[in-house]
Amino acid sequence: MSQYTFESLEKTLEKYIPAEELAEIKRIVFGKESKRLDLPKCATKAADERNFELEGYRFEASIEQLRPPRCIRVGLIQNQIVLPTDAPVRDQIVALHKRIEEIVEVAAMCGVNIVCFQEAWTMPFAFCTREKAPWTEFAESAEEGQTTRFCQELSKKYNMVVISPILERDDNHGGILWNTAVVVSNSGNVLGKNRKNHIPRVGDFNESTYYMEGNTGHRVFQTAFGKIAVNICYGRHHPLNWLLYSLNGAEIIFNPSATVGELSEPMWPIEARNAAIANHCFTCAINRVGTETFKNEFTSGDGKKAHHEFGHFYGSSYVAAPDGSRTPGLSRTRDGLLVAELDLNLNRQISDKWSFKMTGRYEMYAEELKAAVQHDFQPNVIKE
Amino acid sequence: MSQYTFESLEKTLEKYIPAEELAEIKRIVFGKESKRLDLPKCATKAADERNFELEGYRFEASIEQLRPPRCIRVGLIQNQIVLPTDAPVRDQIVALHKRIEEIVEVAAMCGVNIVCFQEAWTMPFAFCTREKAPWTEFAESAEEGQTTRFCQELSKKYNMVVISPILERDDNHGGILWNTAVVVSNSGNVLGKNRKNHIPRVGDFNESTYYMEGNTGHRVFQTAFGKIAVNICYGRHHPLNWLLYSLNGAEIIFNPSATVGELSEPMWPIEARNAAIANHCFTCAINRVGTETFKNEFTSGDGKKAHHEFGHFYGSSYVAAPDGSRTPGLSRTRDGLLVAELDLNLNRQISDKWSFKMTGRYEMYAEELKAAVQHDFQPNVIKE
Repeated sequence: MSQYTFESLEKTLEKYIPAEELAEIKRIVFGKESKRLDLPKCATKAADERNFELEGYRFEASIEQLRPPRCIRVGLIQNQIVLPTDAPVRDQIVALHKRIEEIVEVAAMCGVNIVCFQEAWTMPFAFCTREKAPWTEFAESAEEGQTTRFCQELSKKYNMVVISPILERDDNHGGILWNTAVVVSNSGNVLGKNRKNHIPRVGDFNESTYYMEGNTGHRVFQTAFGKIAVNICYGRHHPLNWLLYSLNGAEIIFNPSATVGELSEPMWPIEARNAAIANHCFTCAINRVGTETFKNEFTSGDGKKAHHEFGHFYGSSYVAAPDGSRTPGLSRTRDGLLVAELDLNLNRQISDKWSFKMTGRYEMYAEELKAAVQHDFQPNVIKE
Repeated sequence: MSQYTFESLEKTLEKYIPAEELAEIKRIVFGKESKRLDLPKCATKAADERNFELEGYRFEASIEQLRPPRCIRVGLIQNQIVLPTDAPVRDQIVALHKRIEEIVEVAAMCGVNIVCFQEAWTMPFAFCTREKAPWTEFAESAEEGQTTRFCQELSKKYNMVVISPILERDDNHGGILWNTAVVVSNSGNVLGKNRKNHIPRVGDFNESTYYMEGNTGHRVFQTAFGKIAVNICYGRHHPLNWLLYSLNGAEIIFNPSATVGELSEPMWPIEARNAAIANHCFTCAINRVGTETFKNEFTSGDGKKAHHEFGHFYGSSYVAAPDGSRTPGLSRTRDGLLVAELDLNLNRQISDKWSFKMTGRYEMYAEELKAAVQHDFQPNVIKE
């Protein structure tokens, strides 16, 4: 058993723990049970044939007198890269488009309204190498690139909102790069984009070798299926990032990611779920799967020998709800599609119940935070 | 099996899951294993005789060249009330002093440097009743009350910092009440106090019936054993509350709490742990234990019949570390003392590794937060 092969927490618990105690364990670990969602047979059959995991869950809300239920379905896609990382750039992109196309088709069978792909989904997560070539060739225009056109086709075909996190080349500003989520409306129009607000300098990655902190703030996108936002990868470690998306009205915050390893995996079930609780909204955490090997060796700033891969992307994509509950995670090792039906009415119901925003005292924090960043800030420390 | 009797997640996992898979499950659920701390036999014997659980863990840091390790020990105490809630007020207080005294004595045997009691530890958590009498009689002066004097005796006797969360009566300001943590230095002097910043209006509790939002900001206390702060109970749901204690330099943030029930229990392992991760510090989450029954029936705003108790305080106190690891929780049903040895050097090491503060962009958030609280704030929503 190793972190490369262990398939899932949830399945292991179910294998060994007797039913009565399992129910208590699941309540404590996952919260109120998210119920299974019946998915059409054609979808489960297609998922089997195409070799990816398909899971469905639903989160219910109470019936209200004045608002009908607002049930929508999200699809979270996690996948391995398709071709070796030294295959021609265009071939790699085309192969990933093809793989995603066959998963999105199943999402459509399952009635998914909003689909989100993993961070930088058209490429290997090669930023560990610090090489500029050929990786910057994967960058595309957010508005007019081939990947955005591909997503527009999917959107129109399936009446689906598509969130497409890519490496963006910004030709209107000197051709620089950004880590960007493009949001395509179900009409097929590009609704807008939001850039990664926090850029890691940790372990194998200083991604600011390639792109800087995003300058698009905390945009929320009004879609036909609710107000959504995209907090890319490392931004999940920053509670303020989630908060500002929420204060701008996001009902669902997606967190497309690419993360590996021993240190981040115990944090993975915590952060997006904490954000759902703290902000009375749904969060969707998506991580890629598999091990990516690079032709040229690289070092990791950890004193160890140069190597060709930096660890196992552990998948484990999940949806967390404002009531503290969550779905089990997708596999740690396989491609997968997680379909979740969310009654968005739950957000306001939980907000009315727990009232974290009403009790949030944001004026006080705006002032304290402003003070804390001043050059002459003196921490409030009481000494004897 | 019910939420009243299920003893602990950790023990159930250990009972059923084979070793190899258990290691992976623990890694994902608890993070890097916190090692067992050897405690003296006299302490385990005394804990047995006095009928409380005693557990010890340690969190190590890497060896540095310029700083020696900074290992200190914290003690988290969770306990049931001792006498029935309709016993005379003074008897209840004295009985709780006695119970805590015998647990603190064991903490001293274990070399604890900083001990923290649960929220409002000198009384039943009676704020569900909305009765003012006799509960307001439990309030005391933070500086000169009998409980503070009691803590000062303990501090001097054991050279221990004592965090004593009480119901405070503020005679210098009209005799009003506060929910306050008193911090007593190991010298026996009162180092200061910090009041609960966020007051719940949820379920059985609108605690603002008794006391309002704290006006002491985010004080950090410089003790002989490190810089500490106290985030009382409901403040754990507010990521900004943790953040501001951390920006003021807290190395350990204690979260003395009183929480029950189906809805909050799945949130319990998430919030304090997320705070440890997000703020590169240690957090100590403490919850009381048991079921408290009140003579007069009360309702809970949930349409259900009046009742005499509002649920099971599920204990489960734990320590979380900045690297995402945590101790197992204490029992859900028994009194307990959790001793944890923390090498405080770990905070800066993890901060240097993950750099959430360096990448935090607090200027941007200070501005966005200031804008978000204006009357004419327009959320940043992109429409088609």
